[in-house]
Amino acid sequence: MCSAPRPDQDGSRAAFDEAIAVTRQQPAPRADLGEPSWWAATIPPGWDVGAAINGGVVLALAANALRGETGRPCPLSTTVHYLGQATAGSADIAVEVLRAGRTRHVAQAAVRQEGVEVARALGALGVLGDVGEVDDVRHWHVAPPPLPPVEECVAPPSAEQAVLPPPPLARNVELRLHPDHVGFAFGRPPGDPVIHAWARLADGRDPDVLALLVFADALPPAVFNAGLPLGWVPTLELTVHVRARPAPGWVRVAARTRLRASGYLDEEAEVWDADDRLVASARQLALSPRAPTPPTRPA
Amino acid sequence: MCSAPRPDQDGSRAAFDEAIAVTRQQPAPRADLGEPSWWAATIPPGWDVGAAINGGVVLALAANALRGETGRPCPLSTTVHYLGQATAGSADIAVEVLRAGRTRHVAQAAVRQEGVEVARALGALGVLGDVGEVDDVRHWHVAPPPLPPVEECVAPPSAEQAVLPPPPLARNVELRLHPDHVGFAFGRPPGDPVIHAWARLADGRDPDVLALLVFADALPPAVFNAGLPLGWVPTLELTVHVRARPAPGWVRVAARTRLRASGYLDEEAEVWDADDRLVASARQLALSPRAPTPPTRPA
Repeated sequence: MCSAPRPDQDGSRAAFDEAIAVTRQQPAPRADLGEPSWWAATIPPGWDVGAAINGGVVLALAANALRGETGRPCPLSTTVHYLGQATAGSADIAVEVLRAGRTRHVAQAAVRQEGVEVARALGALGVLGDVGEVDDVRHWHVAPPPLPPVEECVAPPSAEQAVLPPPPLARNVELRLHPDHVGFAFGRPPGDPVIHAWARLADGRDPDVLALLVFADALPPAVFNAGLPLGWVPTLELTVHVRARPAPGWVRVAARTRLRASGYLDEEAEVWDADDRLVASARQLALSPRAPTPPTRPA
Repeated sequence: MCSAPRPDQDGSRAAFDEAIAVTRQQPAPRADLGEPSWWAATIPPGWDVGAAINGGVVLALAANALRGETGRPCPLSTTVHYLGQATAGSADIAVEVLRAGRTRHVAQAAVRQEGVEVARALGALGVLGDVGEVDDVRHWHVAPPPLPPVEECVAPPSAEQAVLPPPPLARNVELRLHPDHVGFAFGRPPGDPVIHAWARLADGRDPDVLALLVFADALPPAVFNAGLPLGWVPTLELTVHVRARPAPGWVRVAARTRLRASGYLDEEAEVWDADDRLVASARQLALSPRAPTPPTRPA
């Protein structure tokens, strides 16, 4: 089962759990079908990329409210459309349960800040087996991305070293990029829109099903490695399928872009856990970068 | 631009346009943000697979209402969650515009039959270039699926020939399967959960952006070719990215499943047009088949 996050041994919450924490605003019983229920959140600073909170973090926040409302622990398939830029600060989330089944619920979440909806999420929530406990697992023609050991991979280079310094998100989501996939940051894109990387939460909290939603959107845009300008690549829509609860430890993320057309591009991300299981698959639609300058500077 | 469907030269509408036709119920100006607008539809028989209308057809119907409401012709990225089984007959669609931008709208559609919501869709709509007119197209490491010419491919075998006869949908969506990918229908699955096929609307109507939503879900489940039981594989969620308006003629669809776990499986579908352009990418989450008998029998 996908369990709720537990406090650390010293009783404090991990930074990620703090970032996506939600509280039911009305201490009422679960809402009827079709009636929204309200949840409150406060997004801390440090989870942003450029001018906005990372899209995966917004999705994880929405999914956490969906989890709370439905009582179903795993976001099996969740889609979010970004309507505006989420920023650090208070947010409220209106959750509406659309289908309440025995094993699976479907619900939507409207994330609002200062009265303006910044994201709409729609998801199916249910129960997934733990990695290693699922007896029907079968992969076909898929394998974890080839990556050297963590210690041989590359942390995103600093502002002093690179033309594209890492965003504030990098303080909370630790990445180690494949040495062959970091060229974009030095103005030497290798040509292929592919980035493979290790990822974990910087405070050492182990991954869970909600963290997978963040890892699916935490890498620099793979298209930077194809030589496209290092401009902002805003995600319009992100869909993540979570397929199993991940094992503890670093995950590996394989991201790639396959097509740019009419100003839009896709980005696919697979997340693999430490036990070599495909634990999440994601695809997003984003705007193709246009700006000639890097989108973010560290504060 | 993705244009609205035109009547045939004799003035009659193609079967697909009839199937997904929507009419605004209140002859009112466009609804304000946050206020639903109502559309009416009548789903004809002949678009079903097993007990339910094909999921791609339901998505196309919802997307047609989103198109009508937003005035934006192309469903750039659309997600649908199935809440119940849609059947032939009348339906109404409540559309809510969540974001009205200059080039892009985000809106949701609730498809109801007899007062019960059967599907919830969420989509971004905008404008895409025609194939051949888009000047920024760039593919990376993708190619159309290898398929023999249409005349060397295989129509889904009839009930007399096969253990799995084609569903009623096959009367409206014509398929020609790769000869190596039709084994599932004869009880000889080749082992790989892959199906490549040509597809077109049976009445010869050329594909458009809405037909792509159907083609993305019109093939038999690829997982049948892996030897899983030929049971019903209900789609829970389907997301389709439409990337360009397709050229006239047959499209090619490449479908595959990569992972089954915890009773769920994914299916990915790429749709390529006659000009060798990737025009749509789709992924769905479905229930893994369990029933030992074929799900449908022709009437």
